[in-house]
Amino acid sequence: MTRKPLAATLALGMGLAAAANANEGMWMPTQLPELARTLKVAGFKGDPKQLADVTAPPLSAVVRVGGGTGAFVSGDGLLLTNHHVAYGVIQYNATKDHNTIDEGFIARGRDDERAANPDYRVLVTVGFDKVTDEVLKDARGKTGRGYYDAVENARKRIVADCEAEAAVRCSVANMYYGSDFYRIRQLELTDIRLVYAPPRAIGNYGDEIDNFMWPRHTGDFTLLRAYVGKDGKPAPYSKDNVPYQPPAHLKMALDGPREGDYAMLAGYPGTTYRLRTADEFANQIDTVLPRRVEVFQQLIDTIEAVGKGNADARTRYASQLQSLKNNRKRAAGELEGLLRSDAKAQRAADEQAMLAATDASYKADIDALFASLAEERAVGERELLVGLMSSQTQLLRSALLLERLRIESAKPDAERESGYQQRDQALIEGVLKQVQRRYDPTVEKAILTALLTRYQQLPDDQRDAHYDNLFGRTPAELAKHLDELYAQTTLGDEAQRLSRFEAARKGGFIESDPLVSVASALVMAQLNDERQSKERQGEQLRLRPSYMQALFAWRAKQGRAVYPDANSTLRISYGKVEALHPRDAVSYAPVTTVAGIVEKNTNTVPFDAPKPLLAAIAKGDFGSTADPALKTQTVNFLTNLDTTGGNSGSPVLNAKGELIGLNFDSNWESVSASWWFDPRYKRAVHVDMRYLRWLLAKVYPAPELLREMGVPAE
Amino acid sequence: MTRKPLAATLALGMGLAAAANANEGMWMPTQLPELARTLKVAGFKGDPKQLADVTAPPLSAVVRVGGGTGAFVSGDGLLLTNHHVAYGVIQYNATKDHNTIDEGFIARGRDDERAANPDYRVLVTVGFDKVTDEVLKDARGKTGRGYYDAVENARKRIVADCEAEAAVRCSVANMYYGSDFYRIRQLELTDIRLVYAPPRAIGNYGDEIDNFMWPRHTGDFTLLRAYVGKDGKPAPYSKDNVPYQPPAHLKMALDGPREGDYAMLAGYPGTTYRLRTADEFANQIDTVLPRRVEVFQQLIDTIEAVGKGNADARTRYASQLQSLKNNRKRAAGELEGLLRSDAKAQRAADEQAMLAATDASYKADIDALFASLAEERAVGERELLVGLMSSQTQLLRSALLLERLRIESAKPDAERESGYQQRDQALIEGVLKQVQRRYDPTVEKAILTALLTRYQQLPDDQRDAHYDNLFGRTPAELAKHLDELYAQTTLGDEAQRLSRFEAARKGGFIESDPLVSVASALVMAQLNDERQSKERQGEQLRLRPSYMQALFAWRAKQGRAVYPDANSTLRISYGKVEALHPRDAVSYAPVTTVAGIVEKNTNTVPFDAPKPLLAAIAKGDFGSTADPALKTQTVNFLTNLDTTGGNSGSPVLNAKGELIGLNFDSNWESVSASWWFDPRYKRAVHVDMRYLRWLLAKVYPAPELLREMGVPAE
Repeated sequence: MTRKPLAATLALGMGLAAAANANEGMWMPTQLPELARTLKVAGFKGDPKQLADVTAPPLSAVVRVGGGTGAFVSGDGLLLTNHHVAYGVIQYNATKDHNTIDEGFIARGRDDERAANPDYRVLVTVGFDKVTDEVLKDARGKTGRGYYDAVENARKRIVADCEAEAAVRCSVANMYYGSDFYRIRQLELTDIRLVYAPPRAIGNYGDEIDNFMWPRHTGDFTLLRAYVGKDGKPAPYSKDNVPYQPPAHLKMALDGPREGDYAMLAGYPGTTYRLRTADEFANQIDTVLPRRVEVFQQLIDTIEAVGKGNADARTRYASQLQSLKNNRKRAAGELEGLLRSDAKAQRAADEQAMLAATDASYKADIDALFASLAEERAVGERELLVGLMSSQTQLLRSALLLERLRIESAKPDAERESGYQQRDQALIEGVLKQVQRRYDPTVEKAILTALLTRYQQLPDDQRDAHYDNLFGRTPAELAKHLDELYAQTTLGDEAQRLSRFEAARKGGFIESDPLVSVASALVMAQLNDERQSKERQGEQLRLRPSYMQALFAWRAKQGRAVYPDANSTLRISYGKVEALHPRDAVSYAPVTTVAGIVEKNTNTVPFDAPKPLLAAIAKGDFGSTADPALKTQTVNFLTNLDTTGGNSGSPVLNAKGELIGLNFDSNWESVSASWWFDPRYKRAVHVDMRYLRWLLAKVYPAPELLREMGVPAE
Repeated sequence: MTRKPLAATLALGMGLAAAANANEGMWMPTQLPELARTLKVAGFKGDPKQLADVTAPPLSAVVRVGGGTGAFVSGDGLLLTNHHVAYGVIQYNATKDHNTIDEGFIARGRDDERAANPDYRVLVTVGFDKVTDEVLKDARGKTGRGYYDAVENARKRIVADCEAEAAVRCSVANMYYGSDFYRIRQLELTDIRLVYAPPRAIGNYGDEIDNFMWPRHTGDFTLLRAYVGKDGKPAPYSKDNVPYQPPAHLKMALDGPREGDYAMLAGYPGTTYRLRTADEFANQIDTVLPRRVEVFQQLIDTIEAVGKGNADARTRYASQLQSLKNNRKRAAGELEGLLRSDAKAQRAADEQAMLAATDASYKADIDALFASLAEERAVGERELLVGLMSSQTQLLRSALLLERLRIESAKPDAERESGYQQRDQALIEGVLKQVQRRYDPTVEKAILTALLTRYQQLPDDQRDAHYDNLFGRTPAELAKHLDELYAQTTLGDEAQRLSRFEAARKGGFIESDPLVSVASALVMAQLNDERQSKERQGEQLRLRPSYMQALFAWRAKQGRAVYPDANSTLRISYGKVEALHPRDAVSYAPVTTVAGIVEKNTNTVPFDAPKPLLAAIAKGDFGSTADPALKTQTVNFLTNLDTTGGNSGSPVLNAKGELIGLNFDSNWESVSASWWFDPRYKRAVHVDMRYLRWLLAKVYPAPELLREMGVPAE
């Protein structure tokens, strides 16, 4: 079988037209020269070739920060990211006298810039190289677990070789589901300082109520600065360090966005599923999401029912309940969006046409892939239930953690399962300690009753014999077993948990307890599931590339390029500033103004706009940052750019490549976009850089920083 | 003092320009010829003089129905009103086999039209005559209670004389707060039949969730038919009755509304406060509404706190709690709107300018009016608290009702206070019976503790000595009194209440009970308050006309006509189809389409669109009722017409006087419009007649009715 690399991308190089949704796509920068024609049609004024190299300007200004993205905005390492991405840094610098969260922070000169928490990192990409052959060399000819292990071992070896160089962090990214692998080398900057943060009531105005909402009025930005040793190399915090000179920095635009303007964005989107098979789409829509909604709702009802007569239990489970409600809402929203977009039928029709046109040489692999995915689907409910039994309980989770920790700790640290290594032990200890505040035996038994009753109803071939033995086959047996278990276990006592933790982390014998005995059997089932899962993952890693090749060929026929699903590597999206028509008769303008801050203000969290901000709005002194058409100060804007989680803090650029915005959220209607991009509803929400400039000029002044960014200081 | 009648209206006759808000105003039809110029500028194509006579076409087609408005739409008495105005009629005709609410109803021919509940009435106005001199003749020279009684007696006498004619119902309407009085003669039609009602999921699609909301997708209409005896005179239901031939009926338009189109509406708006004094505005905004929000919230918190540990109490008080929450929301919404419109400052500036320009002859009366209103304000909190002690309790309310019933029943029926006459006794008995399902002693004591604690904190001159004696002056005394009272009273027992009811309705002795003794003292305080209130009402009735004259003169100088505050008499509003921009970056189109029905549909009440409707939408066969520009079927539309409660069922007419819509709601942003008309936010929500025509043509067909209304039947 001959693999044609990125056939679809090349097709565009042959001059074919772009897809219907010109704004869909999280492109690898290396793909952009191929998209030159559509970029130009979309309005881009620069040279697409300049965007192809992630290690050269301007993309070398775009870096990973915390769990999101950031961009250098001065030659002296000044770094722009979201308030919520820098939240830990702001919180870390709060003191009794200065609540940096509520009041914000403005450094009085560079000497006053405050060190971030020591584990805060900024990663600057310095290398991006294809290593597909090296990764797959040993895997070829193998199947299943053998394929999986060969790939994993190759990846670990490449990372270890790469990191032999000091202060470089390396990783191997998997593109197109095993079709291609890239080695990414990143400079790890470890001295990051807080320079400017607006008050919470600006940086997080609206909080959870406005989260996912548009129109939006949030100044979700913060300025940091990266420092390095005097030798220019990464170094931990030191007074003697000097500002980092980044390989590039972005130029702040003087004009702002208008409806229809070209816009583009660079960042590190986390995970998407757009290239999954039609069956995976159908399963997500027909089964996975409805099941999640149903099970989460059942757990919500269960906890609320017990809580009704039990104020103490209500308090202990308040945060867990809120989290379940958020998860339920998110799953329901994703389902609603996928149904609205008719994603299942569209993906199915697309795949059917693709398969009809596919070269016979891929057919066997694709059929085998479908079979492996069907096996995976079959265990979906069991995996959900088993996962929830651990994540939604306190005592059972403790017992499972202790038992697994004991097993893993008997191995050399490097061979232990991730999550049970030396560095994970503090986290495990924390979980064991928090039980005291979050546990109520009646609630935990009710949760387990709900989950295990569902487990009992799984088909015979889906149940693990360990569960049948431990909990019986009927509701009555289950109730009896749970009552006995929770009456007898001593794990409700913190000292009992912590003494066993000390034993387990040494890989030694754990003192007996009924719940630990149960956990011991359940971990057997867990290990068995993990083995089967890695076997399937190996097969899919081996087989998906054939599906991808079929897709590339099909897209090439359509004249469409294919971007890889998001995987936390640097991507570029392009599109335009665009209004949203979410429902019949409802229109949202793509730019908001300070009038909305006043309208939303209630003087109560989360709509407690700071007095200086309200006064400045009332004064109306917007100067050069006012929008010429709207005659007032803008706040946020909306584009149709393709984003997902991880794009927080992504810089938004105009047609000339100048910085006009800072990405910080999406609209609720696009919560399903991780699977399906619907151009009617997919929007990204950005801070207008003119709002940042106005705040720094007139409200909480920092004229030096404006000058450093090369924009007017007043 | 010389009274110049309606000076401001005459000013327009002199050719002065209209006010800034051309669409503000609930005009008496007699005023319309004076507004001819502005009506023409607004786009009206007809002759304004034709709109002046409420007893001639077209206004004689507009009638009172239930608590709202309706209009004849055929020469055979076919009557169009809202589904919610005819709700009782639809419900009355529900049977075990045919749930007319859920399934709707279509009469198979006239023989199948179903009689309404016997108390359902349609009132056709046949006379509207000024009787100011007759009403005020005896009052002149009197003050206070004397003035009040003279006016009331004159009104009763005029009504009695008028109603001597059979089947005519008469009333005397007070215009401009005692400046003018009109005798209204109305034909009372008593045989009303149900002709066509859509299913609830069309007629009330969205229910409470969509109430006050825009965009809206509700087919809130029903068709009735009025019948009379063979002699053409009103008669109770009889098989032999014949369809009523109304003095006029409205012609259904073939075209629909478009943004910017002229629109007008006729109906019976209930109550507005727009001509109140600046101090009354300030008091409403600074005191009345914040106090209502605060007290309602306190009662909500009180009931919820007791309910937390008491599931039974939660059930018993669920409906009361919901009603308190609605009242709190409504008051908060009204306050928010008045603050947003800056109504207090605007009204104050207007009044100040008026007073500066006012003829000295009115000054003394106006000062005396302000003094009387200040007295009324002073008792505002007491009246609120005393009202809530009765309306929010079960046992205390029962005792108060029994004691007052006993006192009133000793008088001849005609002299009894309204609410305690013969015809009210069934209602009182009902209240006494429902206690059993709605009473919990802990909750009632908590509610009274909250209200009486506030009462204890009133200034000395505001507290009635009866309260001090009964409940003490400190929280501890209050708690002791309430505990004893509720421990000892026997009124928690239904038999105890009903036996006393039998005694009270005869005006006889009521068996003693601690709570009845308390009620006996509180009714003394109540009667005292009522005497003072009537004294003040008399003074205000005497004095407000001077304030009105000053206002007329001031508006005449501004070139503005003055409409009387709404008082359930026939009024006309005119304006246009207009979009709404409720908040920064949010726009609502003025016309909705069936796409919104599908978007909102969840298959669950209240968004459970009927399958035949969804199928018809999917089929897309909209024929002649489709909007030519939108290329689809419209549902509801929005105008800037001036409306308030009572305008439900008002016909909406186009520039040619044809029927284009049926009013059924307002938007939430205009909940404060009963005090202040803000053209930015005030909108009225209507059913597009094309939606009605489409439903009758294609979805739940009734071609005969379409033919009867003179529009295409397909």
